[in-house]
Amino acid sequence: MSGSTLGNLFAVTNFGESHGPAIGCVIDGCPPGMALSEADIQSDLDRRRPGTSRHVTQRNEPDSVEILSGVYQGVTTGTPICLLIRNTDQRSKDYGNILETFRPGHADYTYLHKYGVRDPRGGGRSSARMTAPTVAAGAVAKKWLFEKYGTQFKGCMTQIGDVVIPFESWEHVPNNPFFAPSADVSALEDYMDALRKAGDSCGARIRVVATGVPVGLGDPLYDKLDADIAFAMMGINAVKGVEIGAGFASVAQRGTTHGDSLSPDGFMSNNAGGVLGGISTGQDLDVSMAIKPTSSIITPRASIDTAGNPSEVVTKGRHDPCVGIRATPIAEALLALVVMEHALRHRAQNADVRVATPDIARQRG
Amino acid sequence: MSGSTLGNLFAVTNFGESHGPAIGCVIDGCPPGMALSEADIQSDLDRRRPGTSRHVTQRNEPDSVEILSGVYQGVTTGTPICLLIRNTDQRSKDYGNILETFRPGHADYTYLHKYGVRDPRGGGRSSARMTAPTVAAGAVAKKWLFEKYGTQFKGCMTQIGDVVIPFESWEHVPNNPFFAPSADVSALEDYMDALRKAGDSCGARIRVVATGVPVGLGDPLYDKLDADIAFAMMGINAVKGVEIGAGFASVAQRGTTHGDSLSPDGFMSNNAGGVLGGISTGQDLDVSMAIKPTSSIITPRASIDTAGNPSEVVTKGRHDPCVGIRATPIAEALLALVVMEHALRHRAQNADVRVATPDIARQRG
Amino acid sequence: MSGSTLGNLFAVTNFGESHGPAIGCVIDGCPPGMALSEADIQSDLDRRRPGTSRHVTQRNEPDSVEILSGVYQGVTTGTPICLLIRNTDQRSKDYGNILETFRPGHADYTYLHKYGVRDPRGGGRSSARMTAPTVAAGAVAKKWLFEKYGTQFKGCMTQIGDVVIPFESWEHVPNNPFFAPSADVSALEDYMDALRKAGDSCGARIRVVATGVPVGLGDPLYDKLDADIAFAMMGINAVKGVEIGAGFASVAQRGTTHGDSLSPDGFMSNNAGGVLGGISTGQDLDVSMAIKPTSSIITPRASIDTAGNPSEVVTKGRHDPCVGIRATPIAEALLALVVMEHALRHRAQNADVRVATPDIARQRG
Amino acid sequence: MSGSTLGNLFAVTNFGESHGPAIGCVIDGCPPGMALSEADIQSDLDRRRPGTSRHVTQRNEPDSVEILSGVYQGVTTGTPICLLIRNTDQRSKDYGNILETFRPGHADYTYLHKYGVRDPRGGGRSSARMTAPTVAAGAVAKKWLFEKYGTQFKGCMTQIGDVVIPFESWEHVPNNPFFAPSADVSALEDYMDALRKAGDSCGARIRVVATGVPVGLGDPLYDKLDADIAFAMMGINAVKGVEIGAGFASVAQRGTTHGDSLSPDGFMSNNAGGVLGGISTGQDLDVSMAIKPTSSIITPRASIDTAGNPSEVVTKGRHDPCVGIRATPIAEALLALVVMEHALRHRAQNADVRVATPDIARQRG
Repeated sequence: MSGSTLGNLFAVTNFGESHGPAIGCVIDGCPPGMALSEADIQSDLDRRRPGTSRHVTQRNEPDSVEILSGVYQGVTTGTPICLLIRNTDQRSKDYGNILETFRPGHADYTYLHKYGVRDPRGGGRSSARMTAPTVAAGAVAKKWLFEKYGTQFKGCMTQIGDVVIPFESWEHVPNNPFFAPSADVSALEDYMDALRKAGDSCGARIRVVATGVPVGLGDPLYDKLDADIAFAMMGINAVKGVEIGAGFASVAQRGTTHGDSLSPDGFMSNNAGGVLGGISTGQDLDVSMAIKPTSSIITPRASIDTAGNPSEVVTKGRHDPCVGIRATPIAEALLALVVMEHALRHRAQNADVRVATPDIARQRG
Repeated sequence: MSGSTLGNLFAVTNFGESHGPAIGCVIDGCPPGMALSEADIQSDLDRRRPGTSRHVTQRNEPDSVEILSGVYQGVTTGTPICLLIRNTDQRSKDYGNILETFRPGHADYTYLHKYGVRDPRGGGRSSARMTAPTVAAGAVAKKWLFEKYGTQFKGCMTQIGDVVIPFESWEHVPNNPFFAPSADVSALEDYMDALRKAGDSCGARIRVVATGVPVGLGDPLYDKLDADIAFAMMGINAVKGVEIGAGFASVAQRGTTHGDSLSPDGFMSNNAGGVLGGISTGQDLDVSMAIKPTSSIITPRASIDTAGNPSEVVTKGRHDPCVGIRATPIAEALLALVVMEHALRHRAQNADVRVATPDIARQRG
Repeated sequence: MSGSTLGNLFAVTNFGESHGPAIGCVIDGCPPGMALSEADIQSDLDRRRPGTSRHVTQRNEPDSVEILSGVYQGVTTGTPICLLIRNTDQRSKDYGNILETFRPGHADYTYLHKYGVRDPRGGGRSSARMTAPTVAAGAVAKKWLFEKYGTQFKGCMTQIGDVVIPFESWEHVPNNPFFAPSADVSALEDYMDALRKAGDSCGARIRVVATGVPVGLGDPLYDKLDADIAFAMMGINAVKGVEIGAGFASVAQRGTTHGDSLSPDGFMSNNAGGVLGGISTGQDLDVSMAIKPTSSIITPRASIDTAGNPSEVVTKGRHDPCVGIRATPIAEALLALVVMEHALRHRAQNADVRVATPDIARQRG
Repeated sequence: MSGSTLGNLFAVTNFGESHGPAIGCVIDGCPPGMALSEADIQSDLDRRRPGTSRHVTQRNEPDSVEILSGVYQGVTTGTPICLLIRNTDQRSKDYGNILETFRPGHADYTYLHKYGVRDPRGGGRSSARMTAPTVAAGAVAKKWLFEKYGTQFKGCMTQIGDVVIPFESWEHVPNNPFFAPSADVSALEDYMDALRKAGDSCGARIRVVATGVPVGLGDPLYDKLDADIAFAMMGINAVKGVEIGAGFASVAQRGTTHGDSLSPDGFMSNNAGGVLGGISTGQDLDVSMAIKPTSSIITPRASIDTAGNPSEVVTKGRHDPCVGIRATPIAEALLALVVMEHALRHRAQNADVRVATPDIARQRG
């Protein structure tokens, strides 16, 4: 249970630091007999990778994944799958004074108090780079869920700073560097250019959706499907809020509006976001999250040094002006890992359950 | 790990159904040597209890807790503490047609698909009544954390339906049935009376805060303190969204604003909500959540029956018109349980850590 | 994970002290839809119960089990099953000087050092009485495994003190108070009578067998089926050794003898004891364990008091002169709980596996 | 919880197959601030390594360990430590007919039934080679326990085949290839030479001891220290029996003999093997285990093929004629991992416990 493992039956143990020799994960519990190669994983890693547009950090890491175990002759064996990503960009950086001071909004202060020691290279373990192994593990879960149940995962950015992004179509998402569901992203480009010029950063809002989710996943109490989703999303670097279905809008809703009616053709709305009583309804899982502005900005900030005296911090180097831009594939991966865990858990207990009532959500799909 | 246990080192296993013989929990891992009696637990249970004002359900359950184990001569022994609450209101109800139909917004449909069978009495295990054992366990955690670290927990309602409740003082909270931090709650009374007359229900927004939290609690990845808080809060019945610190407001913030500066006297703001990099800063943990409108309303709703045919559902009996009203002590309890878990976990690994940097947040406190 | 839970998917959390208000357990993860009543559980409890012959302690506890949750209309619902056994024999005892001294062979010294406090009533949590909830949980597992796979569990005593008990037939086991597989137990009766007269106690050797075990249960590393069996058996009060299949005899065996040959009709021997590489072969699981002599004897023993000064301890009251006599149903229960856990775990990961090779062990059965 | 992780607070996740690209483990939960280098780990790996005498397999693997994470500037950071061992001996072997048949005493049959697929290269995951990462993790635990508590681990062989090895002194252990505590091992050499000539294999008995163990480690029920030790030892490849303290000899002991008396100078014997009621007494942990004869022998064996038809199996290549010979460092490592886990767990719950009674076992030490 030590904190670096996500999931119990599809258990992903994450290791590594941003600028150490390597990062990676061990996936324990993957069902055997599934075709799996590095290529199946690499495509999601490439979507998360830095250096792909001028709006993200220019650090250039290929993030090439190597499968060290658990796959024989291109097929999963059911034993632990170790995925390794060597760090290629380990050169010593000019860290400015971050070794002796605490950067506002960063984990420097908390790590030092927790451990008494920390690896400062590139943010060490608190770096957004540590999401790469999670994305890799998520790709394995996605593949299995799709082949078994037809479940699919997609995400997009719905707001950047104070610019709300209109939802036009999922098709636009892969065609721009923002994961925006809009054809024209010129306003976003301009917004980001101005922000970068101002030496500042901004937040973002991300939405992620799972379709084709089996009905019945999740436990009543405490391991609800939505609780595990909230855990996974809030655990992404910089996330400060999570909502499911109607989310915070449900505060002002009435019961007559919020509760999704049922018909033989399916649910008639999805305020629930695909979860009732902690258990999947078979409708789309629909999740949004708030991502805070990047803490690494070139504008000087007031802080203290490790002796507790006043100091000033300037973050050097190029950083993502909006960490939310690369968050979409990460959120998809985490949603997939949560669904995977509960899919296995569900059949452990309930493989013999037969129900007369039709699965109305799936039926419509 | 089966889904009914919260926490690993301070592990709370919940059992029971709303109208079965009893509900309760087993707390495993409580440190020994702490004075503990039923009275220490009963006060929080009474705050959550129904029937205390005209704005909540009139079901009258005393919710008397009995300590069955783990306490000897008024002191915890370090062995499992079983807390039992007998259900006194088990009489057979007029369930209308809820056995053959699925209530919109309820877990009827999902439970049946998951298990093939369900206990429908009073909502069975999906009843809000099942939060009582959690509140009881939370009282034990609160007591230990206060005695050990001076940590305290408090909560309030900040919005009901579309009525935003101005924060005046924590002192008002115990003086009104809404847990509102305002002196005058007549507008809330009127709002609720109108709602009840309309046969409808509404949502709410709840805020919960922990003060005096030790610095250093939480793991970097995946078991972040804020991730575990999100899990715990999203797991409360009817919660659809969770935010920490600036929450969703951080989307539109700039980095120059959001990142909390440090000074020798402490952090200069708390947009982080008390967590950086998944680890507590020592500032207040500050959490908000959205609670959906009660699903049990007397207005008829479209649904299907268990054969999949169209039907109509009417929920009889008295129900909370706003489940959020009684959610405050539940949220406090869950926050306490998460902090407790991480406090024990932290000292397991890091009991020997000594840091030269002063604990600036605590210092100011 | 706190220490009082056995199993992960079929998770049994044990609570209570020997002379507190009640003992019991919560079973989390039981598959839904199985008929279950108190009577299904009571029969195994009665087999373990004290006071049934002159060779065991005369404490008279009915050990009546009450199902508090997880069963509706006589059928498991898939939610936690709380089993409660009220202690009826709580009267204050004459503890002699055991509050101020440490009884040799008992847990007094270790509990005090661990917790700084202990519940001394009847041995508190270290009492053999705490195996009753385990036996109750085991009865639930046995029922499910039998209905699903035809798996059955049986046990017997194979040695008491230095008297080896010849194996004649399983049929004799229920017909004598020793769980001996022999028709004539007069030698055992005489041995026990002499022992009691001498104010002494003796050890025992117990064997437990599972038949009809599915092939494929257990994980390669670390959670081997035999490792989990060893854990469960060594965890029974007073057990000091565990062996599987040929056990310690395998030290002197040759490879040509030990390795069980295979034929189309099944394995040709069972030195493996039903497990190869940590995974069940489908043959009988065959386990033996050594149980130490009862520590509570009337002969005075040298010890120290809680201040560390020399003292002498005499244990008053009636105690089992051989705790092994009542161990057979406990060992059966634990074996059932381990098999149950792995049966659920196996199908979580491997429900889709199809193998061309016939299941030779089952075939023969 | 998926089966490949040992421990919860000091959690070791093992990955790899004998002839895949690499084997290794991730240690999660290691306390920060401990000096650690590859050299600290390599020495124990070298003790386990094949090819060091004519009595063990001649496979030549350097087993060089690389630390990939969790250590910065030679000091543990408290984050996951990934240890990687590249396999250098991956060349395709002549497997004879083991792909189409099942070797008696091997896991071929059970793996195929469990997973439907298996990696046959060098035994895949069931190879004794998979103990190398465990030994590496154990070295980290040993170092921490020694520095914190002065705890030390040592082991020896006490019987090989039917040759009982007299205990003379721990000092002899590193001076012969058998880990024998005797000055003269010529009888063992002769025995092994004869065995090899006969194309057969034999079993062994191993003893492992921990000294300087803190009092109070272990949970009363179910996670007893001795139960976890039994789990760990039975999980070592080829182990068929485990005993603690007097072990199986306790069956024939009397209570007057078995129960270890206490005096102000310490316990007066150690039949308990260092554990009472599942909790460490502070005396030496004293554990023995039975290891079955190597299953890979050149003598042909009756078996079946994957279609279920009769077949014959011959194992080619050089194999250890007694796998027990290299088991001593493995058993030490596992004992260290169990003690480490419970040391962290104990202070999580009981860091505040203060006891007036002196720690008599430690005192004497």
